[in-house]
Amino acid sequence: MANPTAAMLVIGDEILSGRTRDANMHYLAGELTKHGIDLKEVRVVSDDAPAIVAAVKALSAAVTHVFTSGGIGPTHDDITADCIAEAFGVPIDVREDARALLAEHYANTGRELNAARLRMARIPDGATLIDNPVSIAPGFLLGNVHVMAGVPSVFQAMVASVLPTLTGGAPLLSQTLRVQRGEGDIAGPLAALAEEFDDLSFGSYPYQQNGAYGANIVIRAQDGARIDLAMTRLKALFSE
Amino acid sequence: MANPTAAMLVIGDEILSGRTRDANMHYLAGELTKHGIDLKEVRVVSDDAPAIVAAVKALSAAVTHVFTSGGIGPTHDDITADCIAEAFGVPIDVREDARALLAEHYANTGRELNAARLRMARIPDGATLIDNPVSIAPGFLLGNVHVMAGVPSVFQAMVASVLPTLTGGAPLLSQTLRVQRGEGDIAGPLAALAEEFDDLSFGSYPYQQNGAYGANIVIRAQDGARIDLAMTRLKALFSE
Repeated sequence: MANPTAAMLVIGDEILSGRTRDANMHYLAGELTKHGIDLKEVRVVSDDAPAIVAAVKALSAAVTHVFTSGGIGPTHDDITADCIAEAFGVPIDVREDARALLAEHYANTGRELNAARLRMARIPDGATLIDNPVSIAPGFLLGNVHVMAGVPSVFQAMVASVLPTLTGGAPLLSQTLRVQRGEGDIAGPLAALAEEFDDLSFGSYPYQQNGAYGANIVIRAQDGARIDLAMTRLKALFSE
Repeated sequence: MANPTAAMLVIGDEILSGRTRDANMHYLAGELTKHGIDLKEVRVVSDDAPAIVAAVKALSAAVTHVFTSGGIGPTHDDITADCIAEAFGVPIDVREDARALLAEHYANTGRELNAARLRMARIPDGATLIDNPVSIAPGFLLGNVHVMAGVPSVFQAMVASVLPTLTGGAPLLSQTLRVQRGEGDIAGPLAALAEEFDDLSFGSYPYQQNGAYGANIVIRAQDGARIDLAMTRLKALFSE
């Protein structure tokens, strides 16, 4: 059976301006692969409501699960929750259970639950909260869209809250052979082998090291025995 | 006058599987910002022809300049050039000037210009070659789409070849104030200031360090004098 599919939406001017290097995409990609969920596409958009709404609608319709990161804090540029509500055509307002979480957290830490912080309790109607053990302000799930924080430590904690609730497929297994030859020398035999084993995925990732060319050839599949078989053939072709 | 806009398409299974952490997005974002070109969106798709063709069409129609990275090497999984030709509805074949570049390079380095390597001379009709001083196999420009390599050293060299040919706008300037308070404490006054200076862009990027909360507040605009003015007001609000 085909694995569930996923897409990610990274929201934030700071990524597109080059100020910040995104870390969440690489983290989520690795976690989904281990969980047997195929990440099909990632989009990065700025803090612009029409762009966010359009991307949420397109990705939500295309895959099993969507994951967003960024834009759910207390400041004026945090507009993700409102955009998700708009994309699904539902109202949004401060929700009592989210407000209670924040009230207890700020009382415990001696800070004020002011109007700005209360914005983090704004949850679209019909959503389910996502636990945030790091800084308490919750994410949420609406439809098939998981809305999570952009700060990597919080994003990772939310992914850990969410992944066990999702039915994964067979994890994608992989083996890699490092070949000390230029891709142009291995491309012909590699293509023939990939055609013979057309139920497996063969990738070739070139590198250059101390002036010498080489490539990492990666075979991916859900069936470890098939990978073993193909890897034996690959080694016979290219091992010195 | 509004700056030219851009989008990037990253092509590669290895990014979406979590095997490789993309480095080209962050690099291009920084270069475009310095050059006064606004990066509006990035998409990452797998080595899947329909996905690549659809993304190229959508992005090419939406922005001034599109930049792709990945999938132009000699192996069977390098399908970008064919997808670009399909997106623009033009034929693709080995082109003499590209073939000559490769022939000279491989003759000089004592390697064979075999069928696999010759694939790297396949260029869609009507394209302009992009210089590759690192490993010779060229990128190309077709319509408004710049097709470049995924290997970071080659990608960066191609960006350096391309950027001087593009008319940039006024570079986006920015100043940052680091504030040692939680975002919830600064959000109210910050929103009021952002509303007053609504020709500037105000971003707030939270951090947590040794258990203390803080935020970097970034003001961006093309007009440095306006940023100076807003920054003076910002410091009066939040500096201890």
